[in-house]
Amino acid sequence: MLTMTTTASKRPLRRTQEERRATSEEALVQAAIEVMKAKGVAGLTLAEVASVAGVSKGLVVHLYANKQGLQLAALARLRMDFTRRFGTQDPHAPGIERIRRYVHGIFVGLAHKDSSSRLFSALLSEALFQDRAFAEGVAAMNNATKQFVRECLEEEQSQGKRLASSDLDALATFIMSWVRGVIQMHCINEVAGAAPVDRDAMLALIDQTLAALIDGPAPEAKQPPKRRR
Amino acid sequence: MLTMTTTASKRPLRRTQEERRATSEEALVQAAIEVMKAKGVAGLTLAEVASVAGVSKGLVVHLYANKQGLQLAALARLRMDFTRRFGTQDPHAPGIERIRRYVHGIFVGLAHKDSSSRLFSALLSEALFQDRAFAEGVAAMNNATKQFVRECLEEEQSQGKRLASSDLDALATFIMSWVRGVIQMHCINEVAGAAPVDRDAMLALIDQTLAALIDGPAPEAKQPPKRRR
Repeated sequence: MLTMTTTASKRPLRRTQEERRATSEEALVQAAIEVMKAKGVAGLTLAEVASVAGVSKGLVVHLYANKQGLQLAALARLRMDFTRRFGTQDPHAPGIERIRRYVHGIFVGLAHKDSSSRLFSALLSEALFQDRAFAEGVAAMNNATKQFVRECLEEEQSQGKRLASSDLDALATFIMSWVRGVIQMHCINEVAGAAPVDRDAMLALIDQTLAALIDGPAPEAKQPPKRRR
Repeated sequence: MLTMTTTASKRPLRRTQEERRATSEEALVQAAIEVMKAKGVAGLTLAEVASVAGVSKGLVVHLYANKQGLQLAALARLRMDFTRRFGTQDPHAPGIERIRRYVHGIFVGLAHKDSSSRLFSALLSEALFQDRAFAEGVAAMNNATKQFVRECLEEEQSQGKRLASSDLDALATFIMSWVRGVIQMHCINEVAGAAPVDRDAMLALIDQTLAALIDGPAPEAKQPPKRRR
């Protein structure tokens, strides 16, 4: 009776099953990210993730089935973190500015050894090597990023900016593709111990290119001849 | 005596050890490419490559030590093939035109199911997952491609074109990075069975961007603040 009185206005001590599940999932995804940052994508084992998160391996299997499931969840979390930090920081900033911040955010991350950008790039590449389900998860996320870029472009278009292409999906795909390409090149050189890619120079070029694509000179009508697929 | 007379002006039937080695290497690299196109990068085994090439597995180990050695040799061969077909087709074409042909050649290749571009992209990604020696091999190749793009840019500069950056290494790295990024996106969507990336739209955007970077409006002096590495 005493106990009940003192805790009545507080949160019940005993959490619902759903709350516990969410807590375990959060801990497991964070643990998976931590393990992959330290040991690489190939170094991920369910046993180690369970141990870092302080749960049983059986629970990991129950929640994510296998390594791929956990990797996809980690990828989704990394993307959400980026979007939260950079994509929606200031929803009133012009579209091109929001794209710039998103790209710069990813690049600045590359300066740090435990970079999420680096792990994100490696997990994306995994799509080429794992099964179709994994690639579908990656493609769905790519689609979400493309959608974000597309909305920024639409906003610029509605402000009367001349975009380099009337096909906004293609333009958005193009923009996110080079960001990914530059990050991949950066990461390869890093693994190789080769001369690092000059991030500041890349960012300056990205800014120039964005400006050229979003409010550059009126696009020429010149198009390469259509090819058969 | 008769035999000697008839073969005297021909190539000797008995090849030197070096010739035989070159023939085996050629057969093995082609076999490795064939096996990886059919079964993916992870599906490569020395035993199967030896069998396809018609040599002993011992010889494969003798020549390439392991899978990584064979994969690096395959990557170098794919790059050489691209360069031979597209990079140096017409050494008298303007630099921007040679870059365009190189990029278009890679993209056209993506239309075919057994595309070398696709395998090349997958092998590049491997650099993030294998050991440093592999990444070093990939970085060295990236460097050779960058050098090709850089020479094209230098030629344009000598013709009085205004380049988007005076740092030609950075500009070359930027150009090759987005080509790689677009190819990776294309390949991921393909594995996922997602809506394909519109290659023609990408090529049109690449052409526009190349034009903007190589002879666009005079670059603005605006540069982002230098960041500490």
